[in-house]
Amino acid sequence: MKIINLSDLSENCKRDSYLSNNHCIVVHSLVKQIDARTHEDNRLSALDKGFHNMSLQRLTTLRALMANQPKALAAYIVPTADAHNSEYIAPVDARREWISGFTGSAGTAVVTASAALVWTDGRYYTQFDKEADLTLWTLMKQSLTDTPSIEKWLTSHLSEGATVGVDPHTFTRDEWTPLQTALSKHNMHLIPVSKNLVDEARTQLGDPPPKRPNNTIIPLPLKYTGKSAGQKITELREKMTEKKASALVVTALDEVAYTLNLRGSDIQYNPVFFSYLIITPTSVVLFTASDLSAAVREHLAVEGVEVQRYPLGEVEAHLREMAKELSEKGDGKHSIWLSSDGSEAIHRAAAGLDVLENPLNLISEISPVALMKLIKNDVELEGFRQCHIRDGVAVSRLLKWLHDQIDGGRNITEIQAADKLLEFRKDEADFMGPSFETIPGAGANGAIIHYSPSRNGVQKTIERNDMFLLDSGGQYKDGTTDITRTRHMARSPTDEEKSAFTRVLKGQLMMGSALFPKGVKGNVLDSFARHSLWEVGLDYAHGTGHGVGHFLNVHEGPSGISWRPYPHDPGLRPGQILSNEPGYYKVGDFGIRHEDLVEIILVTKDSKHPKAKGLQGDYDGRGVLGFNTLTLVPHHKDCIDVDMLSDFELSYLNAYHKRVLDTLGPILKQRGLNEDLNWLQQECAPMLRT
Amino acid sequence: MKIINLSDLSENCKRDSYLSNNHCIVVHSLVKQIDARTHEDNRLSALDKGFHNMSLQRLTTLRALMANQPKALAAYIVPTADAHNSEYIAPVDARREWISGFTGSAGTAVVTASAALVWTDGRYYTQFDKEADLTLWTLMKQSLTDTPSIEKWLTSHLSEGATVGVDPHTFTRDEWTPLQTALSKHNMHLIPVSKNLVDEARTQLGDPPPKRPNNTIIPLPLKYTGKSAGQKITELREKMTEKKASALVVTALDEVAYTLNLRGSDIQYNPVFFSYLIITPTSVVLFTASDLSAAVREHLAVEGVEVQRYPLGEVEAHLREMAKELSEKGDGKHSIWLSSDGSEAIHRAAAGLDVLENPLNLISEISPVALMKLIKNDVELEGFRQCHIRDGVAVSRLLKWLHDQIDGGRNITEIQAADKLLEFRKDEADFMGPSFETIPGAGANGAIIHYSPSRNGVQKTIERNDMFLLDSGGQYKDGTTDITRTRHMARSPTDEEKSAFTRVLKGQLMMGSALFPKGVKGNVLDSFARHSLWEVGLDYAHGTGHGVGHFLNVHEGPSGISWRPYPHDPGLRPGQILSNEPGYYKVGDFGIRHEDLVEIILVTKDSKHPKAKGLQGDYDGRGVLGFNTLTLVPHHKDCIDVDMLSDFELSYLNAYHKRVLDTLGPILKQRGLNEDLNWLQQECAPMLRT
Repeated sequence: MKIINLSDLSENCKRDSYLSNNHCIVVHSLVKQIDARTHEDNRLSALDKGFHNMSLQRLTTLRALMANQPKALAAYIVPTADAHNSEYIAPVDARREWISGFTGSAGTAVVTASAALVWTDGRYYTQFDKEADLTLWTLMKQSLTDTPSIEKWLTSHLSEGATVGVDPHTFTRDEWTPLQTALSKHNMHLIPVSKNLVDEARTQLGDPPPKRPNNTIIPLPLKYTGKSAGQKITELREKMTEKKASALVVTALDEVAYTLNLRGSDIQYNPVFFSYLIITPTSVVLFTASDLSAAVREHLAVEGVEVQRYPLGEVEAHLREMAKELSEKGDGKHSIWLSSDGSEAIHRAAAGLDVLENPLNLISEISPVALMKLIKNDVELEGFRQCHIRDGVAVSRLLKWLHDQIDGGRNITEIQAADKLLEFRKDEADFMGPSFETIPGAGANGAIIHYSPSRNGVQKTIERNDMFLLDSGGQYKDGTTDITRTRHMARSPTDEEKSAFTRVLKGQLMMGSALFPKGVKGNVLDSFARHSLWEVGLDYAHGTGHGVGHFLNVHEGPSGISWRPYPHDPGLRPGQILSNEPGYYKVGDFGIRHEDLVEIILVTKDSKHPKAKGLQGDYDGRGVLGFNTLTLVPHHKDCIDVDMLSDFELSYLNAYHKRVLDTLGPILKQRGLNEDLNWLQQECAPMLRT
Repeated sequence: MKIINLSDLSENCKRDSYLSNNHCIVVHSLVKQIDARTHEDNRLSALDKGFHNMSLQRLTTLRALMANQPKALAAYIVPTADAHNSEYIAPVDARREWISGFTGSAGTAVVTASAALVWTDGRYYTQFDKEADLTLWTLMKQSLTDTPSIEKWLTSHLSEGATVGVDPHTFTRDEWTPLQTALSKHNMHLIPVSKNLVDEARTQLGDPPPKRPNNTIIPLPLKYTGKSAGQKITELREKMTEKKASALVVTALDEVAYTLNLRGSDIQYNPVFFSYLIITPTSVVLFTASDLSAAVREHLAVEGVEVQRYPLGEVEAHLREMAKELSEKGDGKHSIWLSSDGSEAIHRAAAGLDVLENPLNLISEISPVALMKLIKNDVELEGFRQCHIRDGVAVSRLLKWLHDQIDGGRNITEIQAADKLLEFRKDEADFMGPSFETIPGAGANGAIIHYSPSRNGVQKTIERNDMFLLDSGGQYKDGTTDITRTRHMARSPTDEEKSAFTRVLKGQLMMGSALFPKGVKGNVLDSFARHSLWEVGLDYAHGTGHGVGHFLNVHEGPSGISWRPYPHDPGLRPGQILSNEPGYYKVGDFGIRHEDLVEIILVTKDSKHPKAKGLQGDYDGRGVLGFNTLTLVPHHKDCIDVDMLSDFELSYLNAYHKRVLDTLGPILKQRGLNEDLNWLQQECAPMLRT
């Protein structure tokens, strides 16, 4: 079984554009500790000079390329993006990092003849100062209200008539159109530069981009997916008929993987493979780097799909050809459906922009695949429930092990704890690898929302007096997990820690136990999770919940729970999986987060839900929704102030802990893990009012 | 003192486009009882025949006009709107009503050669069937998901190349642009028809539109407004400089009134006058129907504004002239600022669309006047507090009076209760009239959210066993009120009524006592008001809160509290006034709504707020906001189930009632209203746990 590469920690271009694009939570990215480069300590050192020369050379080469375009570029934009609007990108796509030196997971570079700037958010200000050559590069602090947007900066710094270039593969149409409109209002032009200029500069300087990953594609059988690829394509074709679309172009990697019930490992933590998929009423065309293996071909045959495979690089040519053919039919009735998250390049090709006098109309809106995979089917849901049981065993064992080590006076670093957790997860059936890089935040590190310790340099030991925040997840063939538990290693939190821990828990519980009408958008639930913190002037600087893919990306749109609306949220429905993860972060001191994954269920008077019996209506027929908690790991009772809990909250928590024990206990017993069982029994014993 | 016309109940074209435009609550409009026309009972009666002939004649005349346009119109759209995007419209603008016969406050008519349709929402389906000639008109039920939008209907029913006409005064630019884009995608054209075709048809048929109101304009002195017109204009000019705008065009009637500290009475309940205002760096140009009175001229001089006045009808010509002048300067640096809520006609004139080869760039976004008047200054806030004391006296007296009547066995109709309330309000200083038509819903009528009893026909008597919902408000020179209280007339609600009453109250209280970070949008608070109802599967089909003007419109944007975001909400700030009005409606049985107006305040440890002492932080410097309740009328304690209240809720309510008594009591005493005082003392006595 292939384990998705966890240990490749030199790969440091993770990002969370999904999160920022969708105005949502930003939790699991990497804040890289800087190691070799210590130029800030000795600005005139030889190392520094070499670094400066390298940075300058890269910029100069790019600027020369900009000047040599058919229409010279006054500015060139380098976002952190691949051609599929992936949240995480592969090293081959880490162009902004190469040109700027800044390795953070989010940020956009803009280069002009005289300026070089990076827009990024508050997580990365310190890192930017350490990594970028500040004699060449300027940081634009996105979080500050008086920082102009890229659009404003361009229109106020460039001359009228200026041309701004972007690789159209690295901008979605949703990003392209507003920038184009804004620039044209100032008589400036946004033009697509199809050959990426950073890639060209790398090649010119003898530092070509690494190869695009092309790892083995594996079939995911029906017993895990619950719906054959053939059935999915039939349903998608029905949606196409409704929309009068002659073709559906699937550009997001997780959507291709979902549709064909295939998985890959081309992007770390995300079981996807580089590809495009075009579905027409009569054909299914897949674009991949290599030919399909016999196993994949056999799987597709079993699933009832006849796939024509073409090389990855031919997708645009294929689309232009298709546009021409449709256009030649001349009845004006053909339009092609792409996600508005699809790249500008793909949109242009699909419209036949360069080959047709009258380009085709496009349907550029949310992909029907995104909406289909949002609602998990019964097999997927049962998989989620089952893998959360196994994952609960692994995480519980780790927590017990960690307490034992600390109690025994052994020095355990954050990284060692994360590694041990991976060991425990590997014991579990169908485990395929972590679903993101583990966040093991001890003490003050727990307050860094995107913390990830470096394997290089000094390691932080988990101390007895530390609050320890552990956010991690697993990819299993039957589902994906994402869990955060926070513990006090000596079981003796301060009053402040205990109060904050309890308020965060009350928030998680207020959301987790809420009932709400079917079809409301996720953002209506966000304030419930904050209520107890807001009462005393505390808050957390991230959203409350994100969608989760089924053995796919741990962050999955289009729904989520945040104070900001998700623009494409179609309204909450039974069968969705969401995280429920309020937190509280005292900078320089401690961090608390409680994260469960929850399944949306329909609640009626007969449901297994603590509020089912009290129902007096069903919101005038709309239907009552609530949550079933999937995650099964106890909360740290020593950190809970029982006096702050209402009677309902206390009984809810006791019932949850009983369920954890009743579910995990028999497994531990069966495996002969008696010490783990004893520990779990203590952890899950009911809390009583004193 | 002029009382804004309350009694003119024949004027029945109120609407709440503000509410629907802003995706928010729809509370105070009119559901007209149908009186004379009983054609549904006898479809072939002479009356019916006359009605049918009249309806047909109107349609035929309009269709002839459509055909005779320079470019024949395939469809003509008649919205419910005036040229200022007013929420309520004057009879002169009630064109959709005249052409369709349907008198509801919301709806859009579309007429083609063969079809005549009205899109309206669920409030009006029955009314439409009664009022419109169903042999000619088709109802399009907006609330049903399979009803096509107007845009979809047009593009699927008209032929390619078709021309759709609209009076551009009756569409905002925000409405115009998306429809134009959608039609052009189908090779259809949206064109402005400047002369309104319904008005022309009326004239042709000898039934010309009534005169546009042109009532006296009154000055509002500084002691009420707290900021002179001169100061406001200075501040607006600073905003214009920031935006590099050469002119600001104020199109909303309440914004003109606010800017100049003038009030009128051209639209029922809204103290505004028909006008436009153009501010440039060197001039202030006001367009009104009549010349300004000496009083107004003197007021403006005192307030430091030199106003040039032109006739109302000249605004577009003036704008086109201005566009030409700015264009001739030729430096491309001039743009004109209009609210995107301004009409398409005004936008076209301001851009010089018909007179310039290269029309000017426009800044079409939220008006700075809307944002300025959103935050009430200290004088306005003190006025709000003071008028709520006087309004509380009036409403309390009415409630006491009503109980006395019912207890005394007298028959009181809903209308009589509303009229008596007006009498009590007239006793109060600076009262100018109701702020909307009173909603006095007894029994099942309380469940009709937009209920307004007709003065014609059978009157509903308020029965002893009725829950009675009374939603009303006053315009005072120092502020505007809007209050709903619900009472059980025999003080003996059923368990169901009591439970629902208490849940609605818990919702109002959860929102009213909430703390939240400065700058969050109002929609984050909406779920708090629903929480207690949602717990048992109940809800209400309207938003929770709307902004309120200062002696201006009782519904004021751009903020509000709803599950749907308000697109222009700039984030909540101290000094805003909002309503807090959850409800519950059991159709055919009873309705409950509790409505307070609240003022947003900054909360620190020293504030007078029940949660101030517990503050542990200020949301990392963002600042803590909460509410101060302005409304001062007791809730009906007999309807409250004390066992359903938490300790906090019980003490919060008791403190509120103590405040009501402490504030109103001395006034009643001073006026010698001893019976009212006795009543209030009972109503405000603390509730105890049994």
